[in-house]
Amino acid sequence: MTSPASTLSADEMGIRPRDLDQLCVDTIRMLAVDMVNAANSGHPGMPMGTADMAYVLWTRFLRHDPAAPSWRDRDRFVLSAGHGSALLYALLHLSGYDLSLDELRAFRKLGSRTPGHPERGITPGVEVTTGPLGQGFANGIGIALGQRMLAERFGTPELPVTTHRTFAIVSDGDLQEGVAAEAASLAGHLGLGNVVYLYDANSITIDGATDLSFTEDVGARFAAYGWQVLECDGHDRDALAAAIEGALADTGRPSLVVCRTIIGKGSPNRGGKSSSHGAALGAEETALTKDVYGWPHESTFLVPSEVYARFDERAVEGAAAHAAWDTDIARLATERPEVHAAWESHWTTELPSTEDLLAQLVDGWEPAKAASRKHSGAVLQKVAELVPNLVGGSADLAGSNCSTIKGSDFLGDGEGLSFSGSNIHFGVREHAMGSIVNGLAAHGAFIPFCATFLAFFDYMRPPVRLASLSHHGSIFVYTHDSIGCGEDGPTHQPIEHLWGLRMTPGVTMHRPADGLETAAAWADAITRRDGPTALILTRQGLPALPRAADFDNADLLRGGYVVVDAAGDADVILIATGSEVSVALDARDGLAALGIAARVVSMPSVELFDRQDDAWTTSVLPEGPARVVIEAGRPDGWYRFVGRDGLVIGLTDFGVSAPSPAAFEHFGITGPQVTDRVAEFLAAN
Amino acid sequence: MTSPASTLSADEMGIRPRDLDQLCVDTIRMLAVDMVNAANSGHPGMPMGTADMAYVLWTRFLRHDPAAPSWRDRDRFVLSAGHGSALLYALLHLSGYDLSLDELRAFRKLGSRTPGHPERGITPGVEVTTGPLGQGFANGIGIALGQRMLAERFGTPELPVTTHRTFAIVSDGDLQEGVAAEAASLAGHLGLGNVVYLYDANSITIDGATDLSFTEDVGARFAAYGWQVLECDGHDRDALAAAIEGALADTGRPSLVVCRTIIGKGSPNRGGKSSSHGAALGAEETALTKDVYGWPHESTFLVPSEVYARFDERAVEGAAAHAAWDTDIARLATERPEVHAAWESHWTTELPSTEDLLAQLVDGWEPAKAASRKHSGAVLQKVAELVPNLVGGSADLAGSNCSTIKGSDFLGDGEGLSFSGSNIHFGVREHAMGSIVNGLAAHGAFIPFCATFLAFFDYMRPPVRLASLSHHGSIFVYTHDSIGCGEDGPTHQPIEHLWGLRMTPGVTMHRPADGLETAAAWADAITRRDGPTALILTRQGLPALPRAADFDNADLLRGGYVVVDAAGDADVILIATGSEVSVALDARDGLAALGIAARVVSMPSVELFDRQDDAWTTSVLPEGPARVVIEAGRPDGWYRFVGRDGLVIGLTDFGVSAPSPAAFEHFGITGPQVTDRVAEFLAAN
Repeated sequence: MTSPASTLSADEMGIRPRDLDQLCVDTIRMLAVDMVNAANSGHPGMPMGTADMAYVLWTRFLRHDPAAPSWRDRDRFVLSAGHGSALLYALLHLSGYDLSLDELRAFRKLGSRTPGHPERGITPGVEVTTGPLGQGFANGIGIALGQRMLAERFGTPELPVTTHRTFAIVSDGDLQEGVAAEAASLAGHLGLGNVVYLYDANSITIDGATDLSFTEDVGARFAAYGWQVLECDGHDRDALAAAIEGALADTGRPSLVVCRTIIGKGSPNRGGKSSSHGAALGAEETALTKDVYGWPHESTFLVPSEVYARFDERAVEGAAAHAAWDTDIARLATERPEVHAAWESHWTTELPSTEDLLAQLVDGWEPAKAASRKHSGAVLQKVAELVPNLVGGSADLAGSNCSTIKGSDFLGDGEGLSFSGSNIHFGVREHAMGSIVNGLAAHGAFIPFCATFLAFFDYMRPPVRLASLSHHGSIFVYTHDSIGCGEDGPTHQPIEHLWGLRMTPGVTMHRPADGLETAAAWADAITRRDGPTALILTRQGLPALPRAADFDNADLLRGGYVVVDAAGDADVILIATGSEVSVALDARDGLAALGIAARVVSMPSVELFDRQDDAWTTSVLPEGPARVVIEAGRPDGWYRFVGRDGLVIGLTDFGVSAPSPAAFEHFGITGPQVTDRVAEFLAAN
Repeated sequence: MTSPASTLSADEMGIRPRDLDQLCVDTIRMLAVDMVNAANSGHPGMPMGTADMAYVLWTRFLRHDPAAPSWRDRDRFVLSAGHGSALLYALLHLSGYDLSLDELRAFRKLGSRTPGHPERGITPGVEVTTGPLGQGFANGIGIALGQRMLAERFGTPELPVTTHRTFAIVSDGDLQEGVAAEAASLAGHLGLGNVVYLYDANSITIDGATDLSFTEDVGARFAAYGWQVLECDGHDRDALAAAIEGALADTGRPSLVVCRTIIGKGSPNRGGKSSSHGAALGAEETALTKDVYGWPHESTFLVPSEVYARFDERAVEGAAAHAAWDTDIARLATERPEVHAAWESHWTTELPSTEDLLAQLVDGWEPAKAASRKHSGAVLQKVAELVPNLVGGSADLAGSNCSTIKGSDFLGDGEGLSFSGSNIHFGVREHAMGSIVNGLAAHGAFIPFCATFLAFFDYMRPPVRLASLSHHGSIFVYTHDSIGCGEDGPTHQPIEHLWGLRMTPGVTMHRPADGLETAAAWADAITRRDGPTALILTRQGLPALPRAADFDNADLLRGGYVVVDAAGDADVILIATGSEVSVALDARDGLAALGIAARVVSMPSVELFDRQDDAWTTSVLPEGPARVVIEAGRPDGWYRFVGRDGLVIGLTDFGVSAPSPAAFEHFGITGPQVTDRVAEFLAAN
């Protein structure tokens, strides 16, 4: 696809003459001003300040094919400063992506493809969802990591298969965020020379000058991380090009190009000031700005035909590069068909159905008492055999999380920095870990997972949320899932986190009660490629649940099912998850001794249960019996199941530092205690 | 209080002879080994590796009075690497804090004062709750900031009033966390020369050698932040002392002392290895370690009398320093009684009752239509007049959050770095902001608040949780509280955050519906000094609620109350919060036109409502009428109020980028749409 032809030249539009590059840059600026004015909302300052940087990058360096936004070896561009979305939309439109001028006119309107911040999946050419600062920075590191891992798996010096680079524009705000610091440190450690980030150093934040709060030596900091640091005038296009050349020349280190810019450049009263950051210029200042740029007052959304032509040239170059790459891949298919097949399978991830994968995972399964994290570690080995593009790791808790793929290297193992393994040491960097995993998902060749303690989900909420919003199939493994983690105490004991995950839109959570449920959780996670899955696992050992000989393992994927039914009509249904299912089973026995018939329902995934048809849900939870939920966490969300008068045995306050059994007893979550609570509850109702 | 006398000397205990300092250090090590062995859980490696650092710091530098753990001008010690709690408990015991050897024996047991990670409020001498890595680092910056602000408010060169320093031991893990990076950058910016952090550079993380994932030049990074960086052998006590002297000598910059240590020092098979980090040494390795240290095998928890005597000496010095400081304060009381009174009021924070404060805040109040963030900004000015030790600020959204105390400076304003103002520019550092605010709360002289968008609560969940666990009266202001933030789109629109806050144990949340409710929220937040309060505010304008002339403003503090009752017996109760209360009022009118009588209940604080007596709650929510909740967020927690068959009009998915009214209409949260939904619901039930 080429850009839409414009019938009018700049001259015919009444635009003051200038050289073509300048005309292109100023067109980007004016489109951004027009978009924000049309929405009467948005951020004109950043696009006006970074138009030179973006133009140089997109027309001289970025290897992309606007007609094929999902070309596997395209260079990736990440707008980490997502509030500058108008810049990105202008670039996408001019470059010939399927984003019309009318979409630019509908900026920030309901249903448009030009939302306030870039959203992956909404707009062709948007690689990752950005806006929450620092996320794009870290996503880009994940994308670059994906390229490196892929290159080492499939490339040779003669036929490298993938050579794409990851570029980003990052802001002061991005660089102040801890998540970017974590990702930068890891990128330096891994020597990701395929990363080139342009830092929009405009000396302005929302509250005023950056030196109100940000006076560190950014360049020195990044050098300390192991980055190459370059600096240039962000409005000198040749200097920018030279700096980017220098960045690309260093293939052993990521590069940060500090570009000194003027925010809102060209706006006479707001240029260089925070007032240009987050509000439309408005009629008066726009008129003055148009005077500065020699742009006609009366028209908006002007794109001279020369500008389209310039971007079309670049698109032609991109298409040619794409075609050449296609030829390379065809050569791979001919010369090394097995490698090509493996390469293809990385990208297409043709997976069995969830049921079939589960069947493979539990083939020869022997029920055993073990912590669900241990079951997970065992299942992980089988998954990794079946799914070679599964990669992941832990935030320095690999042993505790049981998250290592055995027989595969860690990144960085051996002499030099090898990227052939499937295991990643993320370091104590939960936030960057989540964001890097999202970047790996965005890259497209891998199924990424990561792991830490559930309590530290709090350190990485933003990437879990963005995984869902972006439809990434990221897999988040969280162990030590309750007071059952014991002696480490309340700082390490999750309470509000179970419902915290369930309430995050689009996240599918599993809290398995034994090994079989753990296998089902993994089967579901692996085959869900359009949204994130969270696996919630115990530190402490769990018994294997008793199941009938004719139990259908497919029922494990229904989110909730009857584990052991009542003898006769149930007086009460005990609904439990994870480690509390065996507590419920104990209570069922205790209640039976009191003449109370209890059905025990395991509900490892509320989300999956909610997706079942009424026939299933009412068969599991029929009307009539009282309902009690047992879960060692906040009860709040469970009242949807038990009603105002139902009983939820959980925790409303923080945990305690004590051995796991003592902690459970302290909070009344043992078989005998639950028996008593339920019996009292039934007697009172 | 002095330490308990031990009747036996080292020699009598059968401990191999050595010099006194070495004996003290080794006693600390062995106590830690014994504690972890007794618990069969914990972290021996860190205490063994840092005992030299801690001993030098505590006996040569730390100015504290174990008999008076809350001495206002004590030096603060933060164990950021909270997993090394056994080190801290050993130090506290030896120094003479009220922590017996029996408590050390009960390490990590239910009900002990020696929980797995240090918890403020449980153990005398524990300044802040640590364990989640990076938090202590940032807390310490808040404590140091409090000292600086206090010194500038009340000190003179002749009578500085406060001169305490903040020391910490920080780990590799702390320094990998983004929150520490953010806090370090701000500390460097503010030139906090009263900060001395000892970095336990032991080259080991849980997964193995730190160079698996952490090869940055930490010293160069901190220098880039504006810190003084010193380095020494962490087992050479004189070198340590010299380095700390050097750190203290630079009063214009925070200092990081990189101490090269051996984790698990002295353990023959685990020393210098990650295997010493997180598990008890066990019988065999303990025996070997005791051989290395010349410690008797058969006994545990040995403290030779010389060791107590050495720490007693330091306690005497501390008591003398405390007494001298008391004299200074007495002089202040005599010479500058008004300053002394203001100083005292900072520490004691004698506040009016919540009702009285509210009455003062709304004195002369004129109902007006405005965004609740604007109301909050107006109330803030009154609060700041009444409560001079209120300090706070925003993460670079001061204007949007309406969080500036007018007429007061920002820190750093004017020539040089002034700390006289009440406003803090935190920069785009939400996580550190929350942790620094907790540090200010821990310091004790200020009532701290901070502000950002509610969506970015996700960037700072750990400090909100720790504020609650630590009983800090931190105030968290969150604006742009729903899809009402409009065009910025789903990345900026909170959905799961309302219940996310409500589910965090101990957090009291307010989502006010108009100006009066906003004033009540502030009155409650200011007077709650034993736990955090979150204020949830709109971007968009809200009408003032209609209220009867005899409305009692004290009812605003009951969490939920009837705004407008049904005409006659209610068919339905509409419960709403914040911006949705006016939607409910519109729906009440719409329903009335359909012959349906609706009561409207505003429930700004579920937590306060839950604390009311039954008489109040049943008067607001009587049995009988159907119940409907309207809130522009996740519905999950509301079923406790409406039951399984109740209706919750909220959002289960992410928001949209669109102007606020269009977003509300898109999700069916307007008066007419709610009217229809409720009418249909009532017809069907």
